[in-house]
Amino acid sequence: MPLGTQPASPRASLLDRIASPADLRKLDPDQLPQLADELRSFLIDSVSRTGGHLSSNLGTVELTVALHYVFHTPDDRIVWDVGHQTYAHKILTGRREGMASLRQYHGISGFPRRSESGYDTFGTAHSSTSISAALGMAEAARLRGEDRRAIAVIGDGAMSAGMAFEALNNAGDIHDTNLLVILNDNEMSISPPVGALNKHLSRLLSGRIYNGARKIGKRFLENLPPPVFELAKRTEEHVKGMVMPGTMFEEFGFNYIGPIDGHDLESLLPTLQNLRTLKGPQFLHVITRKGQGYKLAEADPILYHGVSRFDHLAGIPSGKDSKGGGKLTYTQVFGDWLCDMAASDRNLVAITPAMREGSGMVRFAHEYPDRYYDVGIAEQHALTFGAGLACEGFKPVVAIYSTFLQRAYDQLIHDIALQNLPVMMAIDRAGLVGADGATHHGAFDLSYLLCVPNLTIFCPADENECRQMLYTAYQHNGPTAVRYPRGSGLGVTPQAAMAALPIGKGEVRREGRKTALLAFGSMLGTALQVGEQIDATVANMRFAKPIDRDLILDLAGRHELLVTLEENSVIGGVGTEVARVLHEAGKTTRVLQLGLPDRFIDHGDQAQLLAEVGLDAASVAQRIEAAGKANS
Amino acid sequence: MPLGTQPASPRASLLDRIASPADLRKLDPDQLPQLADELRSFLIDSVSRTGGHLSSNLGTVELTVALHYVFHTPDDRIVWDVGHQTYAHKILTGRREGMASLRQYHGISGFPRRSESGYDTFGTAHSSTSISAALGMAEAARLRGEDRRAIAVIGDGAMSAGMAFEALNNAGDIHDTNLLVILNDNEMSISPPVGALNKHLSRLLSGRIYNGARKIGKRFLENLPPPVFELAKRTEEHVKGMVMPGTMFEEFGFNYIGPIDGHDLESLLPTLQNLRTLKGPQFLHVITRKGQGYKLAEADPILYHGVSRFDHLAGIPSGKDSKGGGKLTYTQVFGDWLCDMAASDRNLVAITPAMREGSGMVRFAHEYPDRYYDVGIAEQHALTFGAGLACEGFKPVVAIYSTFLQRAYDQLIHDIALQNLPVMMAIDRAGLVGADGATHHGAFDLSYLLCVPNLTIFCPADENECRQMLYTAYQHNGPTAVRYPRGSGLGVTPQAAMAALPIGKGEVRREGRKTALLAFGSMLGTALQVGEQIDATVANMRFAKPIDRDLILDLAGRHELLVTLEENSVIGGVGTEVARVLHEAGKTTRVLQLGLPDRFIDHGDQAQLLAEVGLDAASVAQRIEAAGKANS
Repeated sequence: MPLGTQPASPRASLLDRIASPADLRKLDPDQLPQLADELRSFLIDSVSRTGGHLSSNLGTVELTVALHYVFHTPDDRIVWDVGHQTYAHKILTGRREGMASLRQYHGISGFPRRSESGYDTFGTAHSSTSISAALGMAEAARLRGEDRRAIAVIGDGAMSAGMAFEALNNAGDIHDTNLLVILNDNEMSISPPVGALNKHLSRLLSGRIYNGARKIGKRFLENLPPPVFELAKRTEEHVKGMVMPGTMFEEFGFNYIGPIDGHDLESLLPTLQNLRTLKGPQFLHVITRKGQGYKLAEADPILYHGVSRFDHLAGIPSGKDSKGGGKLTYTQVFGDWLCDMAASDRNLVAITPAMREGSGMVRFAHEYPDRYYDVGIAEQHALTFGAGLACEGFKPVVAIYSTFLQRAYDQLIHDIALQNLPVMMAIDRAGLVGADGATHHGAFDLSYLLCVPNLTIFCPADENECRQMLYTAYQHNGPTAVRYPRGSGLGVTPQAAMAALPIGKGEVRREGRKTALLAFGSMLGTALQVGEQIDATVANMRFAKPIDRDLILDLAGRHELLVTLEENSVIGGVGTEVARVLHEAGKTTRVLQLGLPDRFIDHGDQAQLLAEVGLDAASVAQRIEAAGKANS
Repeated sequence: MPLGTQPASPRASLLDRIASPADLRKLDPDQLPQLADELRSFLIDSVSRTGGHLSSNLGTVELTVALHYVFHTPDDRIVWDVGHQTYAHKILTGRREGMASLRQYHGISGFPRRSESGYDTFGTAHSSTSISAALGMAEAARLRGEDRRAIAVIGDGAMSAGMAFEALNNAGDIHDTNLLVILNDNEMSISPPVGALNKHLSRLLSGRIYNGARKIGKRFLENLPPPVFELAKRTEEHVKGMVMPGTMFEEFGFNYIGPIDGHDLESLLPTLQNLRTLKGPQFLHVITRKGQGYKLAEADPILYHGVSRFDHLAGIPSGKDSKGGGKLTYTQVFGDWLCDMAASDRNLVAITPAMREGSGMVRFAHEYPDRYYDVGIAEQHALTFGAGLACEGFKPVVAIYSTFLQRAYDQLIHDIALQNLPVMMAIDRAGLVGADGATHHGAFDLSYLLCVPNLTIFCPADENECRQMLYTAYQHNGPTAVRYPRGSGLGVTPQAAMAALPIGKGEVRREGRKTALLAFGSMLGTALQVGEQIDATVANMRFAKPIDRDLILDLAGRHELLVTLEENSVIGGVGTEVARVLHEAGKTTRVLQLGLPDRFIDHGDQAQLLAEVGLDAASVAQRIEAAGKANS
């Protein structure tokens, strides 16, 4: 290993010469290992300064170099699944300088973006979209008679999502399209790998022993009569579970090649060169190691998966929580509640679609392994699996990010709400998430959840309320959703004792004059601040559904202006429900609906973003004042 | 074949004795073929009187009998995927009399429903949920130490959805759970089968020849040294595509058994009895024939898939359109437009997730096979595949039902809208759909679409406007959705000539006094009727997004009451946008928001359902009057 934890050379000789992949293709093949080393040094140095994804990017350095070297990018299309592993790609495609602003406000994105570069053929971030998109591109080339290639690079974790299966199934059926799927098999999703498919993939390492034997055996097999050869492939009881890795993908109609070592350019280059000449759907299985070349990340790839700034020589202090800033995060509040609740109720089961760490379920997974289900990147299945458990009297808690719940919307409506099953969704990252940006903001959940019949929606305003609401939702005999933001809240220490809150009832937190601020969830802090400033009444509404109709009508009767505050799209958000309740009651009190604007919001610090969209205290006060003037 | 097209015996001797599966289990095995015949007669007679699904139900008679005979229902749990094939199940579980009211207002549902029977363990209708739900039930049994079985019965079409894959992947990984998946392989989804998986399944028939050879070859193989035996299974270039059927499912960790003849009780009974004793995930592959035992349906299973009332001796006149009632349906308007547009623009490509007939794409598929994509039951992939094509300059049109678009919500947001790609969604069955009921109503699309940035949403009010809007949407350089209802509209013949409508502009159709009715899409007819009656202004709003702000403010300035009318949930619907626009402008005009109520709506005739929810003309007039009184 050339690097270990050496400091990066600030002006590496080969990397300096590469402003685009065309420059890369001027190098000799035997210069590429050096380039890979330089890239890796640059990455470690850069990400330790900005934060970002590290392990996955270190794992794809050689693959990135090889792809841009062999394929004629951007004319050939590379679609990177999830896309957090594209830093080397960004560096090689003219964005080396930009890496200093990675994931920062107005800086470059942590994911591929079509608006950022012509080499970013498809914006990704949510898992498992790449095969579908690349298949569309490959079909476009076929329809136009263009001899370009479309390549999807997808990880083994992402391969567990149904969407990847749908695309593989379609790709093998469609016209003989020039699609190359590269499975980047690093045997580790963000959480430990799960799923039968993953077991299948992990067998390939033991499968290597067969690769040698295979060459010997092949001649023998070729001399068998064809029917016997066929028979030999039939899985029999005593060899079950020993199928060779390629089979599943070949059953989809792909030509399977691999596995090959994804850090060995001497394997990668000729294999890719060969694949570039083959027609029809091709499947290359590449083995990589997350954190490759940086000993600390190799040793603990989960710790180095997504990092804040750190000293790349000293490494990240283990056990450091980089997100809470001293206060408990909502994620931790959930994780603690989950364990406490499980201790007192044997019917609690918990489900995560491959987000054990992010959802705060590490302790639960260890303490209650029998009631813990990591179902893989499979949001649709996660919810309906929960519905099945609920039919039998269990109380499933599905921990899911707001943006990923979008993947299971139909299952929520059709399998859970329609049957009024007591499945509880703990929705993390509701509202603006910060550095992950437009693809990850939880900007829509209230809009798409409010219309779902039978659903109760909780909006905790602080950490203790979150704990009590989780408890209340859990007790409720019907589908529930508790939505809470990324990071920490007001700093209210959760009380150990749990008591159910009255469902559908808000509370007045401050009495003021003329204006009433109706705050939902995370906006309460801002509302209280503004309330003080302009002497307004402040209500903590607590529930988006059922909404506190009595409180709304009461406030409307006593104020000239109601202001709704939510960290959700203002379109279809809970502010529209407040207005509807008033109209339904024949009240004409004015409502100023404040929420996220009708556009996608980029990445940046959460506070910066809130200010940008006019939801910080200063902006809110100003908008209320402007509304007051317009009114008078 | 015992039946052919013979008239059903009105009081069959064995069937009469069966009030529940317990009665069924009192019969001797050799009586079951007679029972199956009686069931089939009853089904043909009953469905020819009520309408409903026929082909699929005829195909599952023996399987249903065998399952209830062998398994201890309802203690063992059967989950029927999609569930339109459960008529025999309903008849055997105490709902024989109820079949006369099938799919009718206040009658029994065309799908399994937990509220209808304890034997309906899980409500289904949307495809591919059964394995997830049954796995949940199986896990519940394991956690409780109960020796019950959970069985998912899933068709080959449903197996193409990603959700089924997610569940299989999880089932093979999870604790050694007693789940039985029965693949009911009838080699026909509603549309002709597509997908690589389907090709794989259809190979099994030719695979039968190997079953014989296998017995002979097995001994030979067992004498090979194990590594060579392994090698023999490795798929080599010259045998590609000849893999035996079970392999894929065994790779997921299932014990694969089959294929067996699903109409042969002598095979079914011992196989199921054997499977009942096996532990861990089991997979049974059953071959059935849609329409089995009714010659007319066997000959044209698509025609007999979903039927209206018909004479079961004469059969359904071919080419009969049972849905239009003389007028063009919106589906036909779309199908015609699609072909006309394709003729004039080579960049048009059309995508359907396995709904060729239902979406009106049969002619397009024949005339433009190269630009037609049936991607299987794969809504997620359908949209992102379209996004990939759009990146390359094609103009994809995705035809999809409102209720199924719920399956692709994340792809719409993350892959299409965020990248502002010109993918057009032709959303059929928006609003109440009638006999298919709660699972199929398009009750939520406006609520979940309005918040999506960059999206333009068209609400055509009649057939010609639908055609012109499809044209307008197609020309638009960004994501679009045209939502139209099931069935026919006002009867306005579409003009061949196509002209773009101004985006975001509605029109006033009638000038009246005091009250203005703002109608969206299908509600215009009702609005015009009510407008005449109460002398109200009537606007055809045309666009849900961007909404016609100028028109709203103009109408607000001239009327005391605005009434919004939409066939979508009143929560988060476009009425809330009208109210928000007014509040934003500081207007306090009252708005009466009329739409679908906040509950799931059962099946029945569309007109009956509209009256039930207060959206027929009489109810609308009454509600406006009541609002006027409340106001004064």
